[in-house]
Amino acid sequence: MKVLIVGANGQIGKHLVSFIQNHDDLEARAMIRNQEQAFFFENLGAETVVVDLEQDIEPIAKAAEGVDAIVFTAGSGGHTGKDKTIMVDLDGAVKTIEAAKQAGVKRFIMISSFDTRREAIQAAPPSFAPYVAAKHYADEWLKSTELDYTIIHPGALTNEKGTGQVEVAFEVGRNEIPREDVASVIVACLENEKTISKEFQVVTGTKGIKDAIDSL
Amino acid sequence: MKVLIVGANGQIGKHLVSFIQNHDDLEARAMIRNQEQAFFFENLGAETVVVDLEQDIEPIAKAAEGVDAIVFTAGSGGHTGKDKTIMVDLDGAVKTIEAAKQAGVKRFIMISSFDTRREAIQAAPPSFAPYVAAKHYADEWLKSTELDYTIIHPGALTNEKGTGQVEVAFEVGRNEIPREDVASVIVACLENEKTISKEFQVVTGTKGIKDAIDSL
Repeated sequence: MKVLIVGANGQIGKHLVSFIQNHDDLEARAMIRNQEQAFFFENLGAETVVVDLEQDIEPIAKAAEGVDAIVFTAGSGGHTGKDKTIMVDLDGAVKTIEAAKQAGVKRFIMISSFDTRREAIQAAPPSFAPYVAAKHYADEWLKSTELDYTIIHPGALTNEKGTGQVEVAFEVGRNEIPREDVASVIVACLENEKTISKEFQVVTGTKGIKDAIDSL
Repeated sequence: MKVLIVGANGQIGKHLVSFIQNHDDLEARAMIRNQEQAFFFENLGAETVVVDLEQDIEPIAKAAEGVDAIVFTAGSGGHTGKDKTIMVDLDGAVKTIEAAKQAGVKRFIMISSFDTRREAIQAAPPSFAPYVAAKHYADEWLKSTELDYTIIHPGALTNEKGTGQVEVAFEVGRNEIPREDVASVIVACLENEKTISKEFQVVTGTKGIKDAIDSL
């Protein structure tokens, strides 16, 4: 299975490409913003394709040609200017979804925010609410399509080493999760069709990742 | 016909409430952000209701109870912080649309931006693109509903006195239009069911507003 990773140069993206390249049944194509970012991925033997997410749908669709799945893990992270929030977290995601349709790629895995429900927008502090709103509308857009989607809502991201142990459910208690474990969760979703048309929150817990994902 | 005007205290909104109150068949309920804005509307004999568009759907739905139509003319205008762009121009609009559904109000008139198509997002200068994107997604959300919508895309807004003469079509040449004429166009749409399920651009032109709207 060949997988296009949008936002490959992010921290989750780098773990993910690395896991995919070390996996017998998976192959990564890393979508990166500029050629200088290619070295890391070429070292892993992964394909790279240079597309800025602020470009139109067509170059993204071209980057998606011939892959079996797309993982969207690009993000402004909520700490950049609010213009990037709407242009990357919302519009970049929607363009990638539309590109998937154009390229005939059915499988789409979205890395969302922990809680993107309407209530979460209202409950968020004013500085964070625009990011939650952007992710909310991106998730809504994806759910309205015919794509084989999975929406992953990770807890507070850390750079700790992965534990391989998680708790997953439609709703779990707010907690942390290492980015490395989020990458493992994505791989588990790619391997498990039971995750299609599902969305779930995930934090560090006590269950092995494959089993936890299979129990969804 | 009773009409809830969301964003009544804006410049288009004030013209609109004034026109509606001077119209035999129409009655306005002005939705405003705080009580200090009420004086202008009370002087016109219009009802007022105080709701901040950053609140949840429920208070907006309550404000919409018993009206026959909603006009959304609130807006950050593209000159406020980009957080307001997503929270007001997109999320405020979507909450108002959802409030219309909850309150059972079928008729919905959206004051959009001149061009909110995908191509316009890509073509806009970086500082303006987030505003275009926010309006794009609000318009898309409205079009996906079962509401009796009309989407008005006015040209560059001015504070000149209205001329009563416009050009309307799905696509017209870029030009200016006084806010007072936009308010007259809204009234003409409220009075003309042929505008349901339509969207059009409007700028200053050579046709009387009623006739122009009727020719759509």
